[in-house]
Parts: sequence; C-alpha cells; structure tokens
Amino acid sequence: MPDSSRSLTWRSTPLKIQGKHFRTIWTEGDAVKIIDQRLLPFRVAVDEVPSAAAMAKAIRDMAVRGAPLIGAAAGFGAYLAAREIHAKENLLEKKGRARFLSEMENLREARPTAVNLAWAVDRQLMKLESIGASKDPVGELKAEAQRIADEDVEICESMGKHGLPLIQEIAKKKKGTPVNIMTHCNAGWLATVDYGTATSAIYQAHRMGIPLHVYVSETRPRLQGARLTAFELREEGIPYTVIVDNACGHLLQRGKVDLCIVGTDRTTSTGDVANKVGTYLKALAAKAHNVPFYVAAPSSSIDWNLTDGISGIPIEERSGTEVTRVSGKGDRRQEELEVEICAPNSGTQNFGFDVTPAALVTALITERGVSEANAKGLKKLFPEKGPRS
Amino acid sequence: MPDSSRSLTWRSTPLKIQGKHFRTIWTEGDAVKIIDQRLLPFRVAVDEVPSAAAMAKAIRDMAVRGAPLIGAAAGFGAYLAAREIHAKENLLEKKGRARFLSEMENLREARPTAVNLAWAVDRQLMKLESIGASKDPVGELKAEAQRIADEDVEICESMGKHGLPLIQEIAKKKKGTPVNIMTHCNAGWLATVDYGTATSAIYQAHRMGIPLHVYVSETRPRLQGARLTAFELREEGIPYTVIVDNACGHLLQRGKVDLCIVGTDRTTSTGDVANKVGTYLKALAAKAHNVPFYVAAPSSSIDWNLTDGISGIPIEERSGTEVTRVSGKGDRRQEELEVEICAPNSGTQNFGFDVTPAALVTALITERGVSEANAKGLKKLFPEKGPRS
Repeated sequence: MPDSSRSLTWRSTPLKIQGKHFRTIWTEGDAVKIIDQRLLPFRVAVDEVPSAAAMAKAIRDMAVRGAPLIGAAAGFGAYLAAREIHAKENLLEKKGRARFLSEMENLREARPTAVNLAWAVDRQLMKLESIGASKDPVGELKAEAQRIADEDVEICESMGKHGLPLIQEIAKKKKGTPVNIMTHCNAGWLATVDYGTATSAIYQAHRMGIPLHVYVSETRPRLQGARLTAFELREEGIPYTVIVDNACGHLLQRGKVDLCIVGTDRTTSTGDVANKVGTYLKALAAKAHNVPFYVAAPSSSIDWNLTDGISGIPIEERSGTEVTRVSGKGDRRQEELEVEICAPNSGTQNFGFDVTPAALVTALITERGVSEANAKGLKKLFPEKGPRS
Repeated sequence: MPDSSRSLTWRSTPLKIQGKHFRTIWTEGDAVKIIDQRLLPFRVAVDEVPSAAAMAKAIRDMAVRGAPLIGAAAGFGAYLAAREIHAKENLLEKKGRARFLSEMENLREARPTAVNLAWAVDRQLMKLESIGASKDPVGELKAEAQRIADEDVEICESMGKHGLPLIQEIAKKKKGTPVNIMTHCNAGWLATVDYGTATSAIYQAHRMGIPLHVYVSETRPRLQGARLTAFELREEGIPYTVIVDNACGHLLQRGKVDLCIVGTDRTTSTGDVANKVGTYLKALAAKAHNVPFYVAAPSSSIDWNLTDGISGIPIEERSGTEVTRVSGKGDRRQEELEVEICAPNSGTQNFGFDVTPAALVTALITERGVSEANAKGLKKLFPEKGPRS
C-alpha cells in the first residue's frame, strides 16, 4: 500500500509505485483513504476520510468524482457511519439503526444526480438489514464496501478485456507503428476505482506492449482531459498529446486517428449516448472519416427505460463561471489561481453533456462484451434487463 | 474622432462614442493611432504609433491583428517611414528611396505569412514610384494608406450588404423572435478596419432593427471569441451568449441556431475554406442539422491557384504553450496573469487552422455578392480572376 503522507508532489511520488497502481479509494487498517482529485494534476495528496460526514463533503466538493467512484465512496461512507455509531450504540438495535439511516440520507444528498450514489447507499442499507445478531455489523459493512469497490474494478477490467481486441486488430494492420486513439474528458481510473472505463482497454493494450499514442482533448470547460486524463497517461507511461477540443476535426480529417474511445454518463437501451459536452462533435467527425467511434458503457450507465436519448435525457446546465473563469497553476505559487477569460458582463450558457445518437456509435464496450449500439445488441448481452413496466 | 488618452477602461469609454465607431486604425492630424488589441477585452488603450519600426513591432506583437487590419497597418507604416525619412533626405531621390525600401523590407517581415501585409507594402512602393517631382511624397503616401483603409471598410460594408438578405429571410420566418446566429473566432471589426467580415451583415441587420442573438464560441486556444467577438457585440449592444467550443454540436442538434457565419483565412477557387481551427467541426454539425453555414470571404482571401484546400493549404502549427497556458484577468490585479492548465510535462500539438470542404459551405459572402462555394460561382462574380499560368 502506498505511503499516505499528505501533500506529496507528483515529482516525488509517481502514482505507479513499485509497479503497483493506487486505487482512487482504499483502506489501510480501519482507515479509508482517497486521492484528493481537486489538487490534480499539480499535486498528489492522499487524505484519510475520518467520518461519513467527511465522505459526504468529499463527494459534494468533488475531491472524489466520476459515477463509479462516487458509488464506491458512498459504500465506504456507510462503513464509516457504522463505525462511528457502533462505538456508542448497537447498530443492530433500533436507536443505532435510526442514526445510521439518518447518516445515509445525508450521504445520499451529497450529489443527488449521481445514480451510483443512491444505489450504493441502498445496497448498504439492505446489507445492514441482512446482518444476523451474532455478526459484527461494522466489519460486515466494511467488507460490503470493499466488495462494491472490487466489483467496480472487475467491471472495468472486463470492459478492458472486451475492448482490447478492437485495438489489437488495428495494431495488426499498423505493423509496429503506434495505434492512435482519441479520447475525450476523463473516463479513466480516476473516475472509477481502478482501470477506468474508456481507458481500460488502452491500459491493457499498453501492458501487452502494443505501441499506442493517445490524443487527449482538453475538454473545456472543466479541462478534465488536460488535467486528469493527461495525468493518468503520463503516470502510466503511455505517449499522448494534449490538443484543444477544436483540433479534433482536423486530426480526424488528416487520418491521424485510428479509433476513438470515450465514456458515457447515460446510455439508452437503443444505444444513444449522453457524455461530456463535445463528444457529439467528435462522433460526427469520426463518422465523416470512417474512424471507429467506441463508447465504453458499463451496464450501470444504461437506462433500460429510455429509447430516445435526444428527447429523453435531460442535459444539465451548469454555472456560467465554468465558461468565464479558468483555474490553473500560477508561476510563483503552489496553489491554483482563477483567471477571467471572457469580455466582462458577457452572458453564458454551459451544458454539461450532449447526446450522440446511436447511428454515430460504432459499438458499445460493456462488461459482458462488445455490442452494436442498438436495442437488439444490448438485449442479447443483457437478456435479463429491460424497461420497468 | 475619439479621445486618445492612454488606458481608458471599457467602463468609462465604450467603443461606440456618440453613435460613432472607432476604427481599428486612424489618423489624427499627422499621428497614426491604433487600439492595442492585446489588452482587450479588459482595457481599451489607444496608442500612437510613432514610427515605421514601431508599426512593425505592433504587427509582430499582435497589438494589431487580422489580415485586413494588418494590410492597413502596413499602409500607414509606409507613411510613417516616409515622414521620418523625408525630414532628412528627399524621398524622391536615390538615397531617400533606398532608405524607404529598407524600411519596407523590415515591415514586410513583421509577419511573413500575412498576404495582406506584403500586398500593402508593394502597393506603397509602387505609389512612391508613381509620384512626380512636384508632389509631396509624404502626403501622397498618407493618402494612399488612408485609401487602403477606406477600401477595406468598403469591402466589409459590401459583404454586409450582400449578407444581410440571408439574415432578413430567416427573420421573416421567425416573425419577431430573434434570429440565432453562431460564429467562431473573431471575424469582426477588430480584425479589419471597420465592420468586420463575418460580423458585417450582423451589424447591418442589428442597425435595421432585426432582433438577433449570437452564440459566440470561445475559440480555444487563443479565445478570440470570448475576448474579442464578445467585446464587439457587447459594445454594439447585440445580445450574445458565450459558449465553450464543445457546446456547438448540442446547440445545433437542438435547433437553437438559425444560421452560422464565420470568416476565412484562405479560400480556394473551388470554395474550400481554411479558417480558425474548430470551424470544420461546426460546419459538420451544421450540415447534420440542415443549418445554413455561410463564410464571409473577401476576394483578398481567395487563392485562385488552389483547387484543393485539404492538400493545398499548409496548416500552421503554433506554440504548445497556447494549449497549456491560459491568460486572463486575476481578481486582484489589473494586469493579466497566465496559468498552467495541463498536467506538467505533457506533449501538445497546436494547429492554427483547419479546412472546411466546400461541400459543407452553404455559400460564400463576397464583396461582389453571394456565391455558391464552387469554382463556377466564384468565376461568375470574379470573371477577371483565375489561376496564374
């Protein structure tokens, strides 16, 4: 397990330690640890999260972010709540349970739109219900949290396994020259517990020795590409180039990209994909130049009730200050600064996501295999799923 | 003529003074004045340019930018050189001419790729050749510089006149609700002497009382949309919304845009358009949603020798620091700050332009009328032009 002293700089502590990755959340003895992602890429700081309230705050303030990671964080938050409460009241009795329930509602509200958050909270509530009187409820909830995290790692690993042949196939044609992959935003291990969704196949291909090069679009407004994906790839030793989002069309037109892989925040049962704003423009350009456009879509992202992404998926509008202000590292100080980049008093609009219609998606990479981006393909891989009646 | 004291802030001195616009370059008596565009949008500073060497520096350092404005600036630079030299040597005699020629070569090299710069320098050299012994050469070159500037204003005004019906037609259908226009980068009056190329029709429509709203894409990496186009529109009182470049596909998909108008840096005789990087992605999305995509293309941008933009137009690669660093106004100080926004030690690539094939261009707006984006249409408007044999 990694050294956990606060405020390590990336120079002294690369993420890959003795050939072993950090996860984004883990335990050391009784302690729950996270990487504070707000400080990346300029500092790698490991924090202990001491309580369920602190975990709710870490989720709310985006010290941990990304739907799968938020789910795992909520799982561990439930363990921390149990530990705290059980020290004073028996968690298996009425008063203890009531306090636990109340802590879980606080946790659930940390980011109300993240589906994985509510799902993990409910799973821990059900777990507590199932614990027999002879058992140690704190240990049981800790083990369940670890299972949630481990299951996410397995899902990401499976997506990588299924995505890998798509890269291998191109590598064969390129005969030793690097496979050029374009991605958008951060669908990497920092958004999950490990491996990432879109990056998982990339990491697996790299470890197999397939020569790769990744175009990382910076992903305005929040710059998760330039900050987080670039950081991950650098630490992993994968060659990459950061470009402005505007440059993606040019690169695709000039044949510089062999395939695109992106993540998804919500996928319809018919294969439409809502992902970070800007994904749609890349998909259009990939289609125009016959470049495969893959979406890494864990089944947890699939909304089986939806058949039309454009009419059915609400697009979150976020604060205009994400457009007008940019945060980064100044030359003189360690802390980040914010600068105003826009003509003062300008109106703004800031859409968090856009919808890429299934027709532009070459295939969906799920944890059960690669599917055509349509209802038939998804139904074949997930026969037990379907719209709630 | 506007007050020219240094360092006016935009609050105290809106660009539109007594209903009259600034030009980007003008004379007051013998003095040549410019707006230092590097300080926009946070400060409006008017500078006197005292010499030809200072004008070369203003062009090199991008205090004035935009191909048409650079041409006009070179014209006035020649006047300044003439004034300086003629005070000591007769400009119409051998020694004076030699000094003038040498100053003109300095000016020409300020930004070697800008076609309009060399063109204006050559025009002033030819002007000097044509001046009879009885004439005042300084006055003649000053008048020629003014003609170059005035001709640019006329060209922009004509483009606006021809583009206006395209907006009027949509306004009719929208019955009083605003016409939504999307633009990219700055093809506004700040890039020319007045009116702008892409903005000219917008300004004319606004002055006629047609309700308008403009989506301004911020235009990473240099943010000319957020900084300059937003500034122009604000001063002109035209409603606008600044968006990240990534949001353009979403807006076009959702029917929020009635037409797009952009500029061009170089246009082939067949209608391919090289413009600020990111233009191509917007054109693809406009085509996907049947939104007209117009390019304001003064004939000075047309390269009559080129028939294929993708193979024929070299795409400038610029410094990676434009990708990794963002400049803006800090909260505490008046001066701008630069911040690092990217994982340290990241590789970058920074293309200045991309090529939009003619098939995606609904029409070209020229100073002689609106043309289909193909050789036949352009030849009809400019029958005297053609490839140099």
